[in-house]
Amino acid sequence: MTHFTLDPQLQKDCFTLGTLGDSLLLLLNNALVPWFILVPHTEAIELFEMDRDSRLALQRDTDALAAFVKPTFACDKLNVASIGNLVSQLHVHVVGRRRDDFCWPGVVWGRPEREDYTDAAVMEIAAALLAQLGDRFSLLDH
Amino acid sequence: MTHFTLDPQLQKDCFTLGTLGDSLLLLLNNALVPWFILVPHTEAIELFEMDRDSRLALQRDTDALAAFVKPTFACDKLNVASIGNLVSQLHVHVVGRRRDDFCWPGVVWGRPEREDYTDAAVMEIAAALLAQLGDRFSLLDH
Repeated sequence: MTHFTLDPQLQKDCFTLGTLGDSLLLLLNNALVPWFILVPHTEAIELFEMDRDSRLALQRDTDALAAFVKPTFACDKLNVASIGNLVSQLHVHVVGRRRDDFCWPGVVWGRPEREDYTDAAVMEIAAALLAQLGDRFSLLDH
Repeated sequence: MTHFTLDPQLQKDCFTLGTLGDSLLLLLNNALVPWFILVPHTEAIELFEMDRDSRLALQRDTDALAAFVKPTFACDKLNVASIGNLVSQLHVHVVGRRRDDFCWPGVVWGRPEREDYTDAAVMEIAAALLAQLGDRFSLLDH
C-alpha cells in the first residue's frame, strides 16, 4: 500500500470499499447499476505493461469480483473493461448489466444519468463482499 | 476449431484475419480506429466462466495483441473490454485510441461513425501481425 495514491477523480466519484487481493476496490456512486472499479497497485498504464505476476493477480481478482457481481445483482451480462481515456491510473471496470437497466444495450461510459447511493445500500454491498469474498476482500483500516 | 461457429453479426461487421493463440482474430471494418476483436473458442458467456487454462491463454493473447496495437498505430491509450450486450458470443475488444480520433475521450461502442477499410489496408495490417506476432498469429486456411 505504500506510496499508493488514488487518482483524485476516482476518489471523488467512488466509495472506497476496501482491498480485493492486490487492488483497491471502489464502488462508483451511481445506484443505477452495480459498477465496481479495481485499482491495482502498479505504475503501468496498460494491462499488458504490468509485470506478469501482478497481471495474473489482477485477472484473478477481476474474475472473482465478476463472479460475485453477476448473481448478487441478478445481472444478465457483465461489462468488464479497462478504458482510461480520462483517468490514466490503471483501473478495471466491472459493471453488472440488466436488460431493464437505464441504458441497456448501450454502454454505461459517458452517460450522464446518476443516482446517489444511500449509506445503508453501500454498507449492504460491503457486507455482501465480506460474506462472499472474505478470503480476498478486506475493509480498509480507518 | 471443430464445432466453432462465429456469431453472424461479428462475421458481418468484421474481417476475419486469422487465429491468435486459441482465439479467432477479427478486425472491425471501421478504418476510423484500429479495432480488433478476439473470439476465444469457448461456450462461456463471461470471462470468469471460462476454464482456468483457456482464461489464462485469452489473457496472454489479449496482452500480446495490445502490445502490438499500441505502437503499431501510435496510440495514446488502449481500450480493452468484454461487453457482449448485443452479441452474446464471448469476445474481447482491443481498440487503439488517439487523442485526435473521432470520439476521444468518449468510448467507441454505440457510435455510428464508420469508414470502410480498403483491401490494401487490411492486407497491410495482416502482414504487420505476421511480422510481429508470427509466433502466435496465423492466417486462416482458405
